[in-house]
Amino acid sequence: MSRRSLHTPAPDAATLRARLDRARGAAADARTDALLVAPGSDLRYLIGQAGGSFERLTALVVPSAESESTTPALVLPKLEAPGYADVPTDDLGVELVTWVDGEDPYRMVADRLAGSRRVAVSDTMVALHVLGLRDALGAAEQVLAGPVLRQLRMRKDAAEIAALRTAAEAIDRVHARMGEWLRPGRTEAEVGADIAEAIVAEGHASAEFVIVGSGPNGASPHHDVSDRVIQRGDVVVVDIGGPIPEGYNSDCTRTYAVGQPSEPDVADSYAVLLRAQREAVAAVAPGVTAQDVDATARDIIAGAGLGEYFIHRTGHGIGLDVHEEPYLVGGNDLPLEPGMAFSVEPGVYRAGRWGARIEDIVVVTSDGAEPLNNRPHELTVLDA
Amino acid sequence: MSRRSLHTPAPDAATLRARLDRARGAAADARTDALLVAPGSDLRYLIGQAGGSFERLTALVVPSAESESTTPALVLPKLEAPGYADVPTDDLGVELVTWVDGEDPYRMVADRLAGSRRVAVSDTMVALHVLGLRDALGAAEQVLAGPVLRQLRMRKDAAEIAALRTAAEAIDRVHARMGEWLRPGRTEAEVGADIAEAIVAEGHASAEFVIVGSGPNGASPHHDVSDRVIQRGDVVVVDIGGPIPEGYNSDCTRTYAVGQPSEPDVADSYAVLLRAQREAVAAVAPGVTAQDVDATARDIIAGAGLGEYFIHRTGHGIGLDVHEEPYLVGGNDLPLEPGMAFSVEPGVYRAGRWGARIEDIVVVTSDGAEPLNNRPHELTVLDA
Repeated sequence: MSRRSLHTPAPDAATLRARLDRARGAAADARTDALLVAPGSDLRYLIGQAGGSFERLTALVVPSAESESTTPALVLPKLEAPGYADVPTDDLGVELVTWVDGEDPYRMVADRLAGSRRVAVSDTMVALHVLGLRDALGAAEQVLAGPVLRQLRMRKDAAEIAALRTAAEAIDRVHARMGEWLRPGRTEAEVGADIAEAIVAEGHASAEFVIVGSGPNGASPHHDVSDRVIQRGDVVVVDIGGPIPEGYNSDCTRTYAVGQPSEPDVADSYAVLLRAQREAVAAVAPGVTAQDVDATARDIIAGAGLGEYFIHRTGHGIGLDVHEEPYLVGGNDLPLEPGMAFSVEPGVYRAGRWGARIEDIVVVTSDGAEPLNNRPHELTVLDA
Repeated sequence: MSRRSLHTPAPDAATLRARLDRARGAAADARTDALLVAPGSDLRYLIGQAGGSFERLTALVVPSAESESTTPALVLPKLEAPGYADVPTDDLGVELVTWVDGEDPYRMVADRLAGSRRVAVSDTMVALHVLGLRDALGAAEQVLAGPVLRQLRMRKDAAEIAALRTAAEAIDRVHARMGEWLRPGRTEAEVGADIAEAIVAEGHASAEFVIVGSGPNGASPHHDVSDRVIQRGDVVVVDIGGPIPEGYNSDCTRTYAVGQPSEPDVADSYAVLLRAQREAVAAVAPGVTAQDVDATARDIIAGAGLGEYFIHRTGHGIGLDVHEEPYLVGGNDLPLEPGMAFSVEPGVYRAGRWGARIEDIVVVTSDGAEPLNNRPHELTVLDA
């Protein structure tokens, strides 16, 4: 049901207007003449509506604050126009420019950007449109809009943080019920179906992802669900989440044991992981860099001789996208700021045997971090 | 649940191998040194697995048949590798090249393509990767892989047509039950939820889209569902579908009336629409162009004075994507061939009052067209 979007509450026009103005300023700062924003989270952030459509171009043209052109325009297929009826285009000063099958929308965009030297396209725009626009734009250089828009999107306002908190509380309620579903003799897929139902029942718009990685499947960080039957003694990684109607996502991992773990090294390794996750969260504060937080978790795990089993970055930003800036990864020297929100989720993966991960969403505060997920972090041993 | 993919039956290795070989030949014909295929339907078509991931690059590098490099390679994040365990890489001669956070996957791809002058990226590759590859590839020109791959994908083999038939039969069974759900006093959303459940119950992997456009909402071709309460006398457009586990999609529209239509012009306009749809299907045959079929429907509707109310193309190809080549649209002079599959779906949209659309999936045969959807095409008047 990924395309159903019954309730899409949007920020008020004043908030959106301020975002558009900031985007125009940020584009000017980046010496970019315009941003071309495709359907998706960037569009939802700027006009309150994510849009849709694939092969027909929809693009919000956002001239920089220093561009000669001053009017943002939403270029879209005429048949998609009713889907944007709730967008306060008048208040936003956004012109609606529709096109019909047979017209050349790339030319329509390019004509609005005559004389541009540098035009940014949103990171999610598909190649079909990226190259279509490239050909229409002639000499203008194409760059990514992500580095411009992330300056806005990764600094969450109070309403955005409230929405992330609502999402986190909803997914915590799902984890609290895990003992109802996670039992020996059931398949991961059966457990996953119950979880998916609960994710929606607890207030999400959809169950965007449900990972139930039991036994050896837990050693694959992006495992989904399978027909594997859960065994007594399995360690099970449960990583679940989705968007609430406001569009902001939950994402929380807890690791469970179905009865006492059958693998002998689980307890010791898990204790290391628990400490790594806790210390990484404790390391979060304004001015600390993203890679510092990654290093905090990584050093603890490596110090215990488990470094080779932690095979991904420590975390990712979250908001309208499940994965967005800032990424907690080696090489990212971005200093954290109040209002940034991201996961802290180290893991240990023992190929062929078991895996474990602990993941909270945290928000940077004025002097540290507020975890939005609050279920116990210890390995939860369920009755079996 | 868009990311759950429990059962993903794939073609056998010989079929995939033949597709890869044809893709390499088609690339050579297009004087393109290599295809870079991102996760999605193109990837599923070539290796039997659609893949996932957004911000981390996954790309199948397919050298052309005339390239010095001869080994296709799947470049992917190490943590995604378990998701490709079912791909018969040995039989396909595809090398697996994994990378970890911190490495530069664009450089890894570019190094395999040294000396290339023209490199094609799949139409669905996101700008993040398109521009990342552009910078790494230096002087090589980027073009779209769509025009190369569509030569393969729009000519369905017997197994693909069988899968489309299975999908069509499943969605026909859902339409057959519409009277159970579509009743005055219920909201479009309530009806849509019942339909979505039935879509899955009848054999789809997911309910990809559910349009219930009642009364004035029917005049918006890409309406979704809303909280509008269905009234006695409403005309209701129901456009529904999704993929079966094999990945092939259904897509079928029927228009219903909840009791006798309250708008006076429905019967006459619907009769025109019915004729337009029937004649357009009858016009399908090998050698007829895509735009000829569009013109057949359009001329009939325009001849009745309703041309301005038919605001979209007549149809779109269908397969692993709901929308793919060939498009039945003015300007597309592609001659149809046996094995091509597409929708034939003219509509009439009376803004603010009502809309109607009739849509079948048809397959081009040796001398005409086989409609895969077989529910009655007349306006179905339901008890109210």
